[in-house]
Amino acid sequence: MAKYVYLFKEGNASMKNLLGGKGANLAEMSTLGLPVPQGFTVTTEACTRYYEDGERIAPEIEAEIYQMLAKTEEVNGKKFGDLSDPFLVSVRSGARASMPGMMDTILNLGLNDTAVQGLAKLTGNERFAYDSYRRFIQMFSDVVMEIDKPKFEAILDEVKEENGAKFDTDLTAENLKEVVTKYKALYLKEKGSEFPQDPKVQLLESIKAVFRSWNNERAIYYRRMNDIPSSWGTAVNVQAMVFGNMGNDSGTGVAFTRNPATGEDKLYGEYLINAQGEDVVAGIRTPKPISVLEQDMPEVYAQFVKTADILEKHYRDMQDMEFTIERGKLYMLQTRNGKRTAAAALKIAVDLVDEGMLTTDEAVLKVEPRQLDALLHPQFDADKLKKAVPVATGLPASPGAATGQIYFTAPEAVLQAKSGKKVLLVRLETSPEDIEGMANAQGILTARGGMTSHAAVVARGMGTCAVVGCGALTINEAAQTLTIGGKSYKAGDWFSIDGSTGKVYDSAIDTVDADVSGDFARLMGWADAARKLKVRTNADTPNDAAVAVRFGAEGIGLCRTEHMFFEADRIAAVREMIISSTLEQRKSALAKLLPMQRGDFEGIYEAMEGRPVTIRFLDPPLHEFLPTIDDETAISGVARELGVSVADVKAKIESLHEFNPMLGHRGCRLAVSFPEIAEMQTRAVIEAAINVSKSKGYTIVPEIMIPLVSDIKEFAFVKKVVDDTAKAVMQEKGATLEYHVGTMIEVPRAALTADKIASQAEFFSFGTNDLTQTTFAFSRDDAGKFLEEYYSKKVFEQDPFARVDQEGVGQLMEIAAQKGRSVRPNIKLGICGEHGGDPSSVVFCHKLGLDYVSCSPFRVPIARLAAAQAAIRTREA
Amino acid sequence: MAKYVYLFKEGNASMKNLLGGKGANLAEMSTLGLPVPQGFTVTTEACTRYYEDGERIAPEIEAEIYQMLAKTEEVNGKKFGDLSDPFLVSVRSGARASMPGMMDTILNLGLNDTAVQGLAKLTGNERFAYDSYRRFIQMFSDVVMEIDKPKFEAILDEVKEENGAKFDTDLTAENLKEVVTKYKALYLKEKGSEFPQDPKVQLLESIKAVFRSWNNERAIYYRRMNDIPSSWGTAVNVQAMVFGNMGNDSGTGVAFTRNPATGEDKLYGEYLINAQGEDVVAGIRTPKPISVLEQDMPEVYAQFVKTADILEKHYRDMQDMEFTIERGKLYMLQTRNGKRTAAAALKIAVDLVDEGMLTTDEAVLKVEPRQLDALLHPQFDADKLKKAVPVATGLPASPGAATGQIYFTAPEAVLQAKSGKKVLLVRLETSPEDIEGMANAQGILTARGGMTSHAAVVARGMGTCAVVGCGALTINEAAQTLTIGGKSYKAGDWFSIDGSTGKVYDSAIDTVDADVSGDFARLMGWADAARKLKVRTNADTPNDAAVAVRFGAEGIGLCRTEHMFFEADRIAAVREMIISSTLEQRKSALAKLLPMQRGDFEGIYEAMEGRPVTIRFLDPPLHEFLPTIDDETAISGVARELGVSVADVKAKIESLHEFNPMLGHRGCRLAVSFPEIAEMQTRAVIEAAINVSKSKGYTIVPEIMIPLVSDIKEFAFVKKVVDDTAKAVMQEKGATLEYHVGTMIEVPRAALTADKIASQAEFFSFGTNDLTQTTFAFSRDDAGKFLEEYYSKKVFEQDPFARVDQEGVGQLMEIAAQKGRSVRPNIKLGICGEHGGDPSSVVFCHKLGLDYVSCSPFRVPIARLAAAQAAIRTREA
Repeated sequence: MAKYVYLFKEGNASMKNLLGGKGANLAEMSTLGLPVPQGFTVTTEACTRYYEDGERIAPEIEAEIYQMLAKTEEVNGKKFGDLSDPFLVSVRSGARASMPGMMDTILNLGLNDTAVQGLAKLTGNERFAYDSYRRFIQMFSDVVMEIDKPKFEAILDEVKEENGAKFDTDLTAENLKEVVTKYKALYLKEKGSEFPQDPKVQLLESIKAVFRSWNNERAIYYRRMNDIPSSWGTAVNVQAMVFGNMGNDSGTGVAFTRNPATGEDKLYGEYLINAQGEDVVAGIRTPKPISVLEQDMPEVYAQFVKTADILEKHYRDMQDMEFTIERGKLYMLQTRNGKRTAAAALKIAVDLVDEGMLTTDEAVLKVEPRQLDALLHPQFDADKLKKAVPVATGLPASPGAATGQIYFTAPEAVLQAKSGKKVLLVRLETSPEDIEGMANAQGILTARGGMTSHAAVVARGMGTCAVVGCGALTINEAAQTLTIGGKSYKAGDWFSIDGSTGKVYDSAIDTVDADVSGDFARLMGWADAARKLKVRTNADTPNDAAVAVRFGAEGIGLCRTEHMFFEADRIAAVREMIISSTLEQRKSALAKLLPMQRGDFEGIYEAMEGRPVTIRFLDPPLHEFLPTIDDETAISGVARELGVSVADVKAKIESLHEFNPMLGHRGCRLAVSFPEIAEMQTRAVIEAAINVSKSKGYTIVPEIMIPLVSDIKEFAFVKKVVDDTAKAVMQEKGATLEYHVGTMIEVPRAALTADKIASQAEFFSFGTNDLTQTTFAFSRDDAGKFLEEYYSKKVFEQDPFARVDQEGVGQLMEIAAQKGRSVRPNIKLGICGEHGGDPSSVVFCHKLGLDYVSCSPFRVPIARLAAAQAAIRTREA
Repeated sequence: MAKYVYLFKEGNASMKNLLGGKGANLAEMSTLGLPVPQGFTVTTEACTRYYEDGERIAPEIEAEIYQMLAKTEEVNGKKFGDLSDPFLVSVRSGARASMPGMMDTILNLGLNDTAVQGLAKLTGNERFAYDSYRRFIQMFSDVVMEIDKPKFEAILDEVKEENGAKFDTDLTAENLKEVVTKYKALYLKEKGSEFPQDPKVQLLESIKAVFRSWNNERAIYYRRMNDIPSSWGTAVNVQAMVFGNMGNDSGTGVAFTRNPATGEDKLYGEYLINAQGEDVVAGIRTPKPISVLEQDMPEVYAQFVKTADILEKHYRDMQDMEFTIERGKLYMLQTRNGKRTAAAALKIAVDLVDEGMLTTDEAVLKVEPRQLDALLHPQFDADKLKKAVPVATGLPASPGAATGQIYFTAPEAVLQAKSGKKVLLVRLETSPEDIEGMANAQGILTARGGMTSHAAVVARGMGTCAVVGCGALTINEAAQTLTIGGKSYKAGDWFSIDGSTGKVYDSAIDTVDADVSGDFARLMGWADAARKLKVRTNADTPNDAAVAVRFGAEGIGLCRTEHMFFEADRIAAVREMIISSTLEQRKSALAKLLPMQRGDFEGIYEAMEGRPVTIRFLDPPLHEFLPTIDDETAISGVARELGVSVADVKAKIESLHEFNPMLGHRGCRLAVSFPEIAEMQTRAVIEAAINVSKSKGYTIVPEIMIPLVSDIKEFAFVKKVVDDTAKAVMQEKGATLEYHVGTMIEVPRAALTADKIASQAEFFSFGTNDLTQTTFAFSRDDAGKFLEEYYSKKVFEQDPFARVDQEGVGQLMEIAAQKGRSVRPNIKLGICGEHGGDPSSVVFCHKLGLDYVSCSPFRVPIARLAAAQAAIRTREA
């Protein structure tokens, strides 16, 4: 028969999945002989059963709970409801992973009309006993029975007023008895039954409430944000109460074995004398630093320091501990690996290696990859930030801090940036035409759009700080002004934005740059030694490429050639090409683009110093390069620029209109329709490679990537164009050059027919953004409208655009990898969707045996660390 | 060693794949001892080799050709280039299937400067010999060497003028010698070499030309239209020449063993005395009916009748024969199963069964399913049509003939139709708002749009005749006029359109209705007995359902509830629901829709008389029910109708705008966001089923189908809404009712996770339209822009929206079927995309073991026949 309830002494730290983090550690501390109030844990499996059984606790589990309760009473030498020394417990939730947003703790459970008298007798303090009772009634009613808290507060205020009491502490035992009576009456009125006097009923209802809280909205949201599956469930810890509020020889506190902000190896924390945990939180009294305890209670302090040391050595990690002192006796209520800032995480991991406590592989596992992000971007100077007050808050779309003068159009931003100014680009929303302005700005601020809007996606790709969807902004582009809450700003005013918090400031705030040396460099070195996956970057410019190399990129996995097409000095030629009605016109426009594109590639090859570079051929639908049909000004501008009629431009825009551009005339379909584009791009790739090979002496092996292939014949068609052109270029230049031609796998059919495609394609790169869109039939641009609803209704737990959907999209990736290898055993496999920088997706890529992941430059260290952790964990398993 | 060339006497009819149809039948006729000029066939495999070898004939194949040539010379007792009796041959292509658009025949090959003298000597007719030579030079130069034909015609005209000759026949032998000289000079000028005198060179070049012609544009187009893979290749037949133009005891003709238009069992054909094949085609002389040959040459006629009888009995099918009579001797040049009209195909198949020549299964295989289409729609009265001249031609979008008075808006069309008029709806293009007008019209005529435009797709679905994209039409909707080539027409004028040819007439032409009795009914009865697949229909109205039942539908596989939403009397309630900002408002709008929707289902259940009905819940994005943002008139109409502001309507339209609506907020996503819609629809389905069960005594088991599911949790969410509602309705009505809840499989992820989905879904229906879009990442609405290019560049051979892409989409279907059955062995599987009515796709569905296919009413007989053929062929194999 399955066991659903464990005494603390029956468990240990390795049973986290079953007992939850808190329960496993309470068990472990018990085993270590540390002073832990005894109790038991109802397992996470009991939670799962609870849901399977239609949200009820099965009779056999109920029986087991009572059985363990009896044993616990025995160990503590007390009994529920006892008139002289009643057994009281706390009930706390405890999932595998720490989950803020779960149910509040319930203290003093076990109190009822008789036990309260026992407590009064035991402590000799009737006031304390009735205060505990009224607190328990309120907590239980609010947390377990969902009766509105304010109704209880109203009663308390009423009794205080009647008795002229200013503070709660002014109330006498008699007053508190009245409160208890009124609370119980309220309970009866609200629930239609008396406040439960049976401690077992109190306990069972509290356990159910913990289980229920696993599926409250905050918990669901937190799980989604933190990749925690809903199937884990939560455990429930029932523990004997100890009281820190029994006088000046009692107290309660929280401490870390090292400083969680800096990593400094020094006990860090605070405590309150004669207080319970909630008093610390309430903030009425100011806690003292933990070091002061040495004077207050030298013996207890020494015992605590020793305990902390035992725990840190035992867990081989910085610990976050809760403790209570009851009448001079120390009790440990919790220990867990402490949360810490990214900087602290690095320092602690490196220090623990130096202290001989961890191997380098273990140290690598101690740092959460996502955390690194905070270290890679400029941050506000902490001192300067303290004095600043935000004027608005938007969505934290791309991390980092930026300060600069605001400008309202991309051309203006470019102009001002080139004149040496620090610029913040402020737009209603951005579009592909704004690319150059975005690239020249310190940061981007928009009034509209979500976390997957153009501005957000592009900014993250560039590693540029961005705050988007800041609804408080009213932008008047014509007047070049910005209004926030009635206050008006003009172009050139100084603003600062924090892309990690979404905060917007109307002043300049100094920033400090990222530092990738020191602890960071040491830890990443260990990570690099451990990992198998190579890490490349998605980079479209020499500058991006250089940043990525500094962050450890080993090549470019995705160089999007269209981003070069948007730059101001070439968009005219691109538009000329699009407007062309004959092959000759198109070729002449392409001839203008050739030297620019060749120059782009030369710059990138030079920045990459011989590392591999994968260049994706033109991908987006051509209408993206033209103004929208209702933008009369832009249209007449284009017409003037190209010397054609406005009607011609409009006709072209209309002819390019598509119902579903994502599924339209783009990707390799463009190259099939206009092979001359692929010819020009091939020429640029090959000529640049030959030039830089000669001038710099690198061995450059360009990888040409054909996008949006769904069938081998499409691929073969474009590959022939590439091969013919490459051959011609080499003959012209009298040079030979190795190059590879491969494809994106971003359409389900490509994955399903990967064996055929691999017969000609030398590499596959999974374009998981588009593959996710097509596998789910979700438009990323539109999914925002219904995905929120999906999360709140528990239809989805995860954003499939943030984390690879392993079941569906991942299945296609597996099929493609297996079929591709069946035909070409050494086919190079990579991923270049945004998932390439998501740690859990990197782990999946490691399992699939991909050769590399590719991500935006600022995610390269994250991917390196995630890849190392995957490799180490696989080795360990 | 592979054999690439076969003498006729080495082959037989079963070797069609290798020898092509023509070659195999020539061989078979040889074996039967029929008079066939001897020769040999270069195989289809040689053609495949030709392409594999980079478009050249391998030396060993060339050697084999010469070897077989030598044998053929021996059999015929003649030699290439002989001065007294030169061997001359014809060269003809011959693929497995008849392929119009392949290379023209080359006659008289073997003639050169010496052989022409031999021919003159042999025939005693120098003029004939040089006329043959100049024809050969022209044919070879044009067909094989691709020299422009008009250049030769210019020379001929010049010589005629010089010699005062009016007709070719006025030219003397000397004149023709001059023509030959000039032709040869032209050849030298054009090709830079002399006209080849070596008959072997002439032969080899001609064979290569046949191989090349396999990939000309016409051939590619024809293959795509007729599901012929390019890998088949073509064979080449080289056959000794016989001459039908050697005097009045010679002749040539074509005949069918039965009438190919009506199927009547009577020899049918025509012939010309003293003529070659091309004279029949040229149409200068009028051929005589074959029966007259009995008077002209009684012995030859008797021999021919006997031969025809032998061939029909031998092939057990109506034969299409070519013959030549040379100096009183009959030669058979070709026989093949004759092409025939649909009516003839049915009559012949049924007659052959009655004559004991075929089993019923064999008869079922004799009729091409696609052909039936022509019999299922009204047609123009043939006599009346003869007098009519079309005024324009558009795309033949939906077959059948229609005549009626033209109206320019859907509401007007509805009004006039309800007053009893026959109406043709004429629109620039149609949109979902026009549905009711389309449903009430005899036919639909649009000026814009292609074969997959809204008008085309909807009209085919309705079985309503349609001509679309008729560019000659200028429509002035405001003035209610139509102009074609300067002539103006007004509302109420009579027009007729032919949806099978695209022709448009400006007068009324009587139509005759489809007849599904007689031969049709007998053959379909045999088909029904043979098939395993059930055939259902896609029908949204009682009328469609009734038509489909008449055509043999065994249930409804797809009832699209949204089509009901567009009808004039309910669109207001639908819009009210969409504009609602609160749940209460939405529920009140839905309450208005409930009785209408329930009435719809009652009508459909009654029409289906207890047959299964699958009802798909609301699928399209909601913006489809609102006007477009720039249609000010419609927007203010809606605002007035709903009593809200124009700004509110516009804001709602804007909020519903999507970048890729195909991948947007639609399908089950609507039901997740607005469960109350699914509640209303469930209520309508269940209430209607209970009502009709009671009133009519049918056992109705509704099948509720949830669209666009990508994950089990989406399905489970909606299923719970359905189950809860159904339970409530049954309790209210005090009735019980069996019903099933299943899903469309139309998103790759649904197929990939079909095992999970099958844990709750009771049936799957493959929505292959959307599945094709997502598997390829092709938007059907946009693919027209590049698919044509794909065909012409041989990237694609088939339209994946017309025929299931078995390799990709089919692979997903297999995965889904296998995974679905692994969890629910008896899961019901069907298909309801447009492919359900495509014969080759039906065969694939049979192989997959689906339970049913569902298609538009007018395709039901086609699907029945295709399903029967698949079952019979599977049994045979």
